[in-house]
Amino acid sequence: MADVKIFLVLALMLIFAIVGILLSKRFRQPVSVGIIILGILLGPSVLGIAEYDSTVAIIAQLGSIVLLFVAGLNSNIKEIYTKRNFYVALYGALFPIVGGFVVSWLFGFDIYQSIFIGATLTATCLGITSSVLREIGKIKTETAKAMIGAAVIDDIISLSILSIVLSVPQQVGAGTIMLQLLLVMGFVLAMLFFGERLLTWIIDYFTDKVIRHSPRLAFVLGLSLVFLFSYIAHILGLAAIVGAFLTGVCLSKSKAVNILLAGSEYFEIIFTSVFFISIGIVVDLFAFVSLFWFIIALTAVAIITKMIGSGYTAYKMGFKKKDALIVGVGMAPRGEVAFIIALNGFLLGVITKEIYSAIVFMSFLTTVITIVLLKYLYNAKGSKSVSEEIDFIDLKVRR
Amino acid sequence: MADVKIFLVLALMLIFAIVGILLSKRFRQPVSVGIIILGILLGPSVLGIAEYDSTVAIIAQLGSIVLLFVAGLNSNIKEIYTKRNFYVALYGALFPIVGGFVVSWLFGFDIYQSIFIGATLTATCLGITSSVLREIGKIKTETAKAMIGAAVIDDIISLSILSIVLSVPQQVGAGTIMLQLLLVMGFVLAMLFFGERLLTWIIDYFTDKVIRHSPRLAFVLGLSLVFLFSYIAHILGLAAIVGAFLTGVCLSKSKAVNILLAGSEYFEIIFTSVFFISIGIVVDLFAFVSLFWFIIALTAVAIITKMIGSGYTAYKMGFKKKDALIVGVGMAPRGEVAFIIALNGFLLGVITKEIYSAIVFMSFLTTVITIVLLKYLYNAKGSKSVSEEIDFIDLKVRR
Repeated sequence: MADVKIFLVLALMLIFAIVGILLSKRFRQPVSVGIIILGILLGPSVLGIAEYDSTVAIIAQLGSIVLLFVAGLNSNIKEIYTKRNFYVALYGALFPIVGGFVVSWLFGFDIYQSIFIGATLTATCLGITSSVLREIGKIKTETAKAMIGAAVIDDIISLSILSIVLSVPQQVGAGTIMLQLLLVMGFVLAMLFFGERLLTWIIDYFTDKVIRHSPRLAFVLGLSLVFLFSYIAHILGLAAIVGAFLTGVCLSKSKAVNILLAGSEYFEIIFTSVFFISIGIVVDLFAFVSLFWFIIALTAVAIITKMIGSGYTAYKMGFKKKDALIVGVGMAPRGEVAFIIALNGFLLGVITKEIYSAIVFMSFLTTVITIVLLKYLYNAKGSKSVSEEIDFIDLKVRR
Repeated sequence: MADVKIFLVLALMLIFAIVGILLSKRFRQPVSVGIIILGILLGPSVLGIAEYDSTVAIIAQLGSIVLLFVAGLNSNIKEIYTKRNFYVALYGALFPIVGGFVVSWLFGFDIYQSIFIGATLTATCLGITSSVLREIGKIKTETAKAMIGAAVIDDIISLSILSIVLSVPQQVGAGTIMLQLLLVMGFVLAMLFFGERLLTWIIDYFTDKVIRHSPRLAFVLGLSLVFLFSYIAHILGLAAIVGAFLTGVCLSKSKAVNILLAGSEYFEIIFTSVFFISIGIVVDLFAFVSLFWFIIALTAVAIITKMIGSGYTAYKMGFKKKDALIVGVGMAPRGEVAFIIALNGFLLGVITKEIYSAIVFMSFLTTVITIVLLKYLYNAKGSKSVSEEIDFIDLKVRR
C-alpha cells in the first residue's frame, strides 16, 4: 500500500496552490507564477515539507497530460492556421532555440544541455499577454488574433522540437535528427489530417449510438484515447505530451467536445494546482545566486529572440511597426510548455536541477517584463476592472 | 520519470471499464459487477495485460478516497438518522461480522483473518437494491427509506469496524480493542458534531468572502480537506477512507455542496472505473475453484445474517413481516465498502490473494441472489423500463 503520507502532501499542495492563486490575482500575475512560488516555499529550498518523489512525479506527469489535452481541446487549428501566423510562430521558435543554444554554449554548458535549454525557449505562454490585452480592451484586435494563432502553432512546433531533442542520443548525428524530424512531422500531420476524422468519428459514433443514456461515458472514452495516443507518441520516440495535445486537437471538433471540456474542467483545476506546485518544489533557490548572470542573459535572449523572430516577421508580413512590436513583446513570456520541457529534461537527467531552476526563473522574468513593456506600449493605465473568474489554465484564453 | 507504460495501462483500464459498464446495463447488473469482471479479464488470471503494481495502487487508493467522499457528500445524516434505522444497521453489521468470523474459523483460517473476513461482511451496498426498487416503482416506500437510511449508518459502522480491525495487532488484547473502539467512536462523533460546523464554516466563509469570483476553487479546498482528514484519520490509527467519508458527510450541508458534487462527478467516473477494474485485476480466478465451498458458505452466511440482523430487527421495530423480509434481503448485497475493506486487507498482507478473491466472488453472488429474491418477493415481472443514465456510483442513489 502506498504511503499514506501522500494524503498530507496532497492536502498541503492544494492548500498552498489556493494561496498561490489568490496572491497571483492580488498582484495581477499569471496564476502559474503564484502557484510555483508557493511550491518553492513548500519544497526543500524553504520549508522542506514536500519533496519531489515518485508519487508526486506520477501525479505531475498525469497533470501535464491533462493540461495539454485541454490546451488541445481549446485549439481550433483550422481557424487558427494562416500562413502569417505560421511564419510568426516558426521564426518565433527558431530564433529562440538558436539564441538559447548560443548563450548556453557561451556560458560553458555542453552541446546537448545547450540544445535543451534552447528548446525550452521556443514555446510562448499567452496567458499573461491575453489578460493584459483583455484588461485594456485590446483582446479582439487583429494583433491579438495573430498572437493567439501563432501561439497555438508555436506549441505544436515546440513540442515537436522537444520530441526531437529528447530522442536524439548524446552523440548527435545528422541522419538521426533527420529521421526523427520526419517521424515527428509524420505523426503530427497524420494526427491532424487522418486522426481528427478517425477520433471524431469514434467518439461521436460512440456518443450517439452506444451510450446515448450515459453521455458522461464519452469523457471516460476521451481520457482513454488521450492515454492511448500519449503512449503511441512515446513508443514512436516522441514526447507523450505531444500525443495528449494532438488528441485534444483531434477531438476539438467532435460533438462530444462539451462533455470533454466539462469533464476536464475540474481535473484541470486539481492537476494545474498540483503540477505547478510540483514545478516549484523541484526549484533550487540557490541556483538564482549561482547562475544569476546566466539567468539574466537567458532572459534577455528569450525576449530579444521573440521580438526578432515573431515581431520582425509580423512586420514583414504586413503589420504596422507598433503592432509588430506588440506581437514581439506579447509572445515573449514563457510558461507551461517551457516548464514541461524543462521538467522532462530534469527527470531524464539531461539538465541539472540548477539549470532547471534557472529556466523557471527566466520564465518568471519574461512574464514580469512583458507586463511592463506591454502596458508601456499601449500607454495604458492599470484599469481597475473587476477580476473575473480566474483563468485557471492560462492556455484556455486562447480559445 | 515514472514508466510511460502507465498510459497504456490506464487507457486499457478505462476502455475495459466502459465495456464492463455497457455489459452491466445489458444484463441489468450493478455497474461494479461488470467492471470487476472486465478487470478480471484484463488481469493476470486471463489476459495478463495489467497487473497490480504501485502506480495502480496509488490510483486505486485515491479512487477509494474520492468514492467515499462522494458517498459522504450524498449522505444526509440528520435526515437519515432514526433510532429504527440505527438498530437495523447495527444488528445488520454485528450478525454478519460474527457469522463471517465463525464460518471462516470453521474453514480453518486463523483468528485475525477470520475477524477480517467477518468485517468485510458488514457493509451493505444498496446500489442494486435501489435500482430494482426503482424499476418496479417501489423506491419511495417506507421500506426503501428505511433501507437507505440503515445502509448509510451501516457504512459508518463498517468503516469504524475496519478501523478497529486494521489497528489491532496480531496479538489481540481486549484493552487494545477497547481503546481503539473509544478512539474510533470519539473521532466519528467529533466529526459528526463539531467537524460538520467547523468544516461547513471554513468552506462557506472561503466561498463567500475569499473566492467569490472563482467558485471552482471551493472544489480545490474541498479536496484538500478530504486529503487532510484522511491523513488525520490515518494517524489516529483509523482507516484513511473513514476520514474521507466523514469529511463528505460534514460538507454535505455546506453551501458549496453543489460545486463539490459537480467537481467530484467526473473524478468519480474515472476513479470508479479504475478502482473497480483494479479490484478485478487483483482477483485470482483459481480461488473460485480452490475455495469453492468456502465461497458458498460465506455467501449463505452473508445473506442469512443480514436477513436476521437487519430483517428481524426491522420486524421487531414495527415493520410488517413481508416488508421486514424485503429489508433483510434488500440489505444483503455487499459492494464498494466490502471491496475496499478486502483490498486494504490484501495490501496490508492480512488476507491472502485467495481470500481476497473469495470475498469478491461472495460479493457477486449476494448481488445476483438479491435480484432474484427481491423480484420474487415483489412478484414483479422484469419491466422494460428505458434505462436511465447509469448510476455511476451505486452509492449515489442514496441521496
